[in-house]
Amino acid sequence: MLSTMPHTPLRIRRLLEHGATRHGTAQVTTATETGVVSASYADVAQNAARLARALRDLGVHRGDRVATLMWNNQQHLEAYYAVPTMGAVLHPLNFRLPPDVIAHIANQAEDRVVIVDASVLPMFEGLLPMLRTVRHVIVNGEDADRPSARRVSWHGYAELIASQPAVYPWPDLHEDQAAAVCYTTGTTGAPKGVVYSHRSVYLHATSVSLPGHFALSHAERMLAVVPQFHVLAWGLPYAAFLTGMQLAMPGRFLAAQPLVDFIGAVRPTKAAGVPTVWQSVLDHIAADPARHAEICSLQEIVVGGSACPPSLMRAYEERHGILMLHAWGMTETSPLGSISRPPADVDSAAAWRYRLSQGRFAAEVEARLIGAHGEPLAHDGQTVGELEVRGPWVTASYFKDQGEDKFHDGWLRTGDVGSITADGYLTITDRLKDVIKSGGEWISSIELENLLMTHQDVLEAAVIGVPDEKWGERPLAVVVPRDQHAPVDTAALRDHLAELLPSWQVPRLWAVVGSLPKTSVGKFDKVALRELHAKGALETSAAA
Amino acid sequence: MLSTMPHTPLRIRRLLEHGATRHGTAQVTTATETGVVSASYADVAQNAARLARALRDLGVHRGDRVATLMWNNQQHLEAYYAVPTMGAVLHPLNFRLPPDVIAHIANQAEDRVVIVDASVLPMFEGLLPMLRTVRHVIVNGEDADRPSARRVSWHGYAELIASQPAVYPWPDLHEDQAAAVCYTTGTTGAPKGVVYSHRSVYLHATSVSLPGHFALSHAERMLAVVPQFHVLAWGLPYAAFLTGMQLAMPGRFLAAQPLVDFIGAVRPTKAAGVPTVWQSVLDHIAADPARHAEICSLQEIVVGGSACPPSLMRAYEERHGILMLHAWGMTETSPLGSISRPPADVDSAAAWRYRLSQGRFAAEVEARLIGAHGEPLAHDGQTVGELEVRGPWVTASYFKDQGEDKFHDGWLRTGDVGSITADGYLTITDRLKDVIKSGGEWISSIELENLLMTHQDVLEAAVIGVPDEKWGERPLAVVVPRDQHAPVDTAALRDHLAELLPSWQVPRLWAVVGSLPKTSVGKFDKVALRELHAKGALETSAAA
Repeated sequence: MLSTMPHTPLRIRRLLEHGATRHGTAQVTTATETGVVSASYADVAQNAARLARALRDLGVHRGDRVATLMWNNQQHLEAYYAVPTMGAVLHPLNFRLPPDVIAHIANQAEDRVVIVDASVLPMFEGLLPMLRTVRHVIVNGEDADRPSARRVSWHGYAELIASQPAVYPWPDLHEDQAAAVCYTTGTTGAPKGVVYSHRSVYLHATSVSLPGHFALSHAERMLAVVPQFHVLAWGLPYAAFLTGMQLAMPGRFLAAQPLVDFIGAVRPTKAAGVPTVWQSVLDHIAADPARHAEICSLQEIVVGGSACPPSLMRAYEERHGILMLHAWGMTETSPLGSISRPPADVDSAAAWRYRLSQGRFAAEVEARLIGAHGEPLAHDGQTVGELEVRGPWVTASYFKDQGEDKFHDGWLRTGDVGSITADGYLTITDRLKDVIKSGGEWISSIELENLLMTHQDVLEAAVIGVPDEKWGERPLAVVVPRDQHAPVDTAALRDHLAELLPSWQVPRLWAVVGSLPKTSVGKFDKVALRELHAKGALETSAAA
Repeated sequence: MLSTMPHTPLRIRRLLEHGATRHGTAQVTTATETGVVSASYADVAQNAARLARALRDLGVHRGDRVATLMWNNQQHLEAYYAVPTMGAVLHPLNFRLPPDVIAHIANQAEDRVVIVDASVLPMFEGLLPMLRTVRHVIVNGEDADRPSARRVSWHGYAELIASQPAVYPWPDLHEDQAAAVCYTTGTTGAPKGVVYSHRSVYLHATSVSLPGHFALSHAERMLAVVPQFHVLAWGLPYAAFLTGMQLAMPGRFLAAQPLVDFIGAVRPTKAAGVPTVWQSVLDHIAADPARHAEICSLQEIVVGGSACPPSLMRAYEERHGILMLHAWGMTETSPLGSISRPPADVDSAAAWRYRLSQGRFAAEVEARLIGAHGEPLAHDGQTVGELEVRGPWVTASYFKDQGEDKFHDGWLRTGDVGSITADGYLTITDRLKDVIKSGGEWISSIELENLLMTHQDVLEAAVIGVPDEKWGERPLAVVVPRDQHAPVDTAALRDHLAELLPSWQVPRLWAVVGSLPKTSVGKFDKVALRELHAKGALETSAAA
């Protein structure tokens, strides 16, 4: 029996039109070199129409890829709406990757146009000669020093759109058509492209906004610290137009001092980003406690991208009354997989246990745990296996790459290892590749890191498995002291762990470093650490 | 360019599986003859599987209609999940309609099975002989007095499902397949069937749950006063499993006294229903102020189905600290069209103006105003026209009835007349058929009613247009005095209106009655009032 309901496509166009009219006075506020700049969603929509016209005039057709090398700002938001709504495909590039990796990604995606922030031009100069398919470069901001390149036309963003009409005949697209592509960062193998559809973007934006997830509405203002190149900024630009939530964009001013200034000026109620940024903000305010007042508008911070140290979550709540919400996701999952809001009616100790987990899955995300032999495992909060997921915003392949070893009977193999409780709360204990296989048992590198970072002398800690003749692998703990001028007593750190863990899990090998290598999205770079260790470049000691 | 995202269907099955596991301990609590009864969502899901097996054994196939004649209770919730998820079509019947109308609806829908609450059996006895397609009757509760009928098999709900396994091989349905059917109440012409799809139910449940709409999460408990036969209980049973929100079901105990007792026992945080129920609760507590404590768990009440008198909204907020949220919708719109949460950053006077409107539209619901000659009108908050809407949960036809005069170029003609502000807030001023056309101008019957009900002497008021030789139509105000034993001074009421309205809008004709006729869903029945007036059965007077 057929329904009488129409199959109205779920499209970004609808979000654009809804946000531009019913939330037309909502503001996106950007930190710039010359101060804070605001624009209404009605303005953004008009500029998106102008940009779409300009791109069409440059020869951008349906399905063509338009890349961005941009910070979080108003013009980037305009591209987020113009490009997919006109039927092209937005490709935010991660400019923190090495230029040869960016070039590999842009060439594989066959990007035709790049919109680049003027502040990124110095890096872009080395990149451009490697870009084989780019025909147009659009510079956002003052571009005194244009790199030169054959076969490429240069345009200024403001000049390009200025003379265009503020309306566009947006096409009627199929909801499964590509809207955007983001690449994995390639910490495990070559970067892979995940191509989001209009439908997946729409459904994800709605789910992200639910009260049990990010809880977004027109009563909120979101500080988007997560870069817009990181998994489509977690869907926040689309959730903003859906709900009327206002946006605060910090641009390139992500150091603690200017970021706290910006928060104080714009008064966001929520924020989202990777844990490392929040650690630097915390330290900044600890050094100047009067600055607490600058961030007191914040009520909730969603952290994801890597596991958040419990000490950081507790510090924000206890010192600043800000709730940090743990979320789990991947480029492949759009990214919302799960988020840690505790059940109702649990006491505060139990609530903390839930909050330190990666949280409960969104309804649309089916999840299972798989054992070493491919067998499904119990969701009992104890049994540990590899997490597999599927759902309408979980990718089923990669661009130009079936990625067959990444899928298992239609489920995405996440590469994450953990357990799931009977009521659906996920705890990630490690990456499959980072688990330390010691004498037939698994040791979680992340658990060791989190426990180390609860110690007052430790600023950051990363643990990797290093070869061991007897045990196969043993953990090596690499720590950054909180006080760079005081020696770190690794024996004391070892005793600290021995109180909390079985003795066979406690590292014997230690290294003290000034800083840890990080990936382009701020995670500890364990590949680099393993290479440093293999080259003998880490000075290790065996704690007694 | 194709996306790498799968086209995972949006199905009620996913809500069932998500709710049964990740929110398996959430409770549905029902008021029964023998006290409050609770069941977990895991229990509900197991019973849904048992019911689906039993229905399959009774010969229910994919697409077959399974009707319910039930109050809001746990077993009705089980049917809400079992029937659509097995591929059949749920058909909640409105047992407050006259039996011949119910029979007409059930026969047109070709209902094969009816699940009926034992308390509804006395009415059902007269109905059953008129049901031409029903082959099985399943009685929920003690059924001492079964009506007899040829060709119909009788079953007890509990006995029928008791021996069935608690799992079912739920089929993989297309998301556009029919999930449920509800009929319009037929206040304008014959009842018409609206057939909801799995997709429309899913998308609607998600949108209803957003913070800007009903704001539903696992931290809430919802008192569902809106009958489950009324537009699929506004989607609340599906939103509950999506979000983990708990449900409080009052059964047939909707009189103020037992309802307030139930609220006090179950402590819901939210409630939803038509305005008339809330007026009786307010009066009940006004008569016994100590009962305020029973309802103090309530924070928000969503009212819809008919316009809510401003005096009622103010009374709940001022006396009880409960926020009443105005919502607009129809059977044809699933029902969520709009809901009245004010913009952020407006003062309390402005917030009240927004709250008294029908609110802002959901993103998925496109809306336009159409003038007398079919032309689109401005959204300026002033211009009045007929509201037309479309979207993924707005019907595009009726069951066995294209309903062509109900649609206009693919838009649903709502029959509602009103204005829309530039920021998307809807104000309904009247039904197209209830507008009083006086001397070429329109007088809003609803505005007159709301102003009358702000007067202390008036309990309820309805205004209809009656023929007038000079003006075409003139308003007749029919009022129910608050104190049935005191005379009402209609001249004073007239003066009250004259202070607030242009004089040509003020009624000269008045009738005072003991009660107003109401439709099966609690709206003032103006068709019946017009008939009473035409028959001369209303005693009218002309106020001086």
